[in-house]
Amino acid sequence: MFPNKRVQGMVGRQIHVEMKGERCVLEGILTSVDDYLNLHLSSASEIQNGVRKRVLGSVVLRGNNVVLINPMKE
Amino acid sequence: MFPNKRVQGMVGRQIHVEMKGERCVLEGILTSVDDYLNLHLSSASEIQNGVRKRVLGSVVLRGNNVVLINPMKE
Amino acid sequence: MFPNKRVQGMVGRQIHVEMKGERCVLEGILTSVDDYLNLHLSSASEIQNGVRKRVLGSVVLRGNNVVLINPMKE
Amino acid sequence: MFPNKRVQGMVGRQIHVEMKGERCVLEGILTSVDDYLNLHLSSASEIQNGVRKRVLGSVVLRGNNVVLINPMKE
Amino acid sequence: MFPNKRVQGMVGRQIHVEMKGERCVLEGILTSVDDYLNLHLSSASEIQNGVRKRVLGSVVLRGNNVVLINPMKE
Amino acid sequence: MFPNKRVQGMVGRQIHVEMKGERCVLEGILTSVDDYLNLHLSSASEIQNGVRKRVLGSVVLRGNNVVLINPMKE
Repeated sequence: MFPNKRVQGMVGRQIHVEMKGERCVLEGILTSVDDYLNLHLSSASEIQNGVRKRVLGSVVLRGNNVVLINPMKE
Repeated sequence: MFPNKRVQGMVGRQIHVEMKGERCVLEGILTSVDDYLNLHLSSASEIQNGVRKRVLGSVVLRGNNVVLINPMKE
Repeated sequence: MFPNKRVQGMVGRQIHVEMKGERCVLEGILTSVDDYLNLHLSSASEIQNGVRKRVLGSVVLRGNNVVLINPMKE
Repeated sequence: MFPNKRVQGMVGRQIHVEMKGERCVLEGILTSVDDYLNLHLSSASEIQNGVRKRVLGSVVLRGNNVVLINPMKE
Repeated sequence: MFPNKRVQGMVGRQIHVEMKGERCVLEGILTSVDDYLNLHLSSASEIQNGVRKRVLGSVVLRGNNVVLINPMKE
Repeated sequence: MFPNKRVQGMVGRQIHVEMKGERCVLEGILTSVDDYLNLHLSSASEIQNGVRKRVLGSVVLRGNNVVLINPMKE
C-alpha cells in the first residue's frame, strides 16, 4: 500500500504531524487529505515539548511542508 | 471535502497564515486562492508574538511556502 | 482574480518581495513574471531593516523561493 | 538502475533516513515507497547522535523533505 | 520577456547566483540553463562577504534552490 | 548541453554534492541519476570541513534537496 494510501486510511483518526519550520508540531483529527498530502485537521493543537501549547481548531496544512505523519494510539 | 476546497471556502473571511521562513505570520482577508494554495490577501498585517507588527495591505503569498492556514473566529 | 494574475497586474510597478533564506528582502520594478511566479526585476535593491543595503540592478528571482509579494505605494 | 528503483529495492529492509529540518534522523523498516520517494516506515524510531531517542512505530515521510536514504547493514 | 528567457540570455556571461542554504553565493560563467533554472557554471567560485573563498570550476546548481540570479557587469 | 546532461556525464566518477540542511556535504561515486537529479552514490562519505567524517556506503539523495554538484579531480 503506497504511503499516500496509508495517510488516507488515517482519515477520522487522531494524527501527529511534524511540519517544516522551527519544529512546528501539530495534533488533530485528520478530516481530509489529497494526493499532495495537503491535510485538513479538525480540533487541532500545536504541541511543544510534548505539551499542548495552542488550540487551533480547523487547520489546513500544505503537503510539501509536511515532514512526518504518525497515527496516534487510541 | 479536499483541503484546497476548504481554503476556497474561506474566501471573504479573515484568515491566519503561517509561512516558511523565520516565523512569518500574517493575517488578512482571503480574496483569492488557486490550486497551489497561492493566496491573495487584502488588509493584511504581519503578526509577531500575537501582536500586529506591520500593515502590508494587499499581498500575494506563494503556495509552496505556506505552512498552515487557519480561519479566524468572527 | 487568481493570485498569479494579481502579480501580472503589478508589471511596471515598484514591488517589495520577500524571499526564503535569511530574510532576503528586495525592492524593484517588476518587468516580467511567469506562472511559477519567477520574477524579473529591474532597478532592484536589497533591503535590510527597511534601508537600501545593496544595489543589484537587473535580477531574476526563482518563484518557489518567493514568500511574499507586496505592491509598493506610489 | 535509477535512484528511485534503488529505494524500491530496499522494501522490507531496515533503512536510515535523514529529513529536512533540524537534523531529523529516522530508522525503520521500509514498507512502501512511491515515485516521489514518499516513504512508509514501520517500527520507526527517531535517532539523535546515533542513539534511539523516540519510538514512533508506523510513520509516513513526505518525499520532498527526504534528504538522504541509506540501507542499514544487517 | 519571461524571467527564464532572461536567464537564457545570460549564457556565456559571468553571473552572480545566490542559493538556498547558509548564504551560499557563487559566481561563474553560465554555460547552460534549462526551464527549471538548473544551471551549469564553468570557472565558478564560492563567494563569502564579497571575497572569493573557494574555486569550484565546473558546477551544476539545482534550479529550485536558486534564490537570485544577477548578471555581472563586464 | 543541459545541466542534467552534464550530471549524467559524471556517472562512474567521484563527485562532490552539497545538500540542503546544515551543511550536509557528501562525496562518492555517482552510479545513477534521473531527470530530477535524484542521485545514487556508492562508496559515499559525509564530509565536514573538508575531512571525511562518516562512511555511508550506498546512498540515495533526493534531487530537490541537492544544492550543488561538482565533479572531483582525478
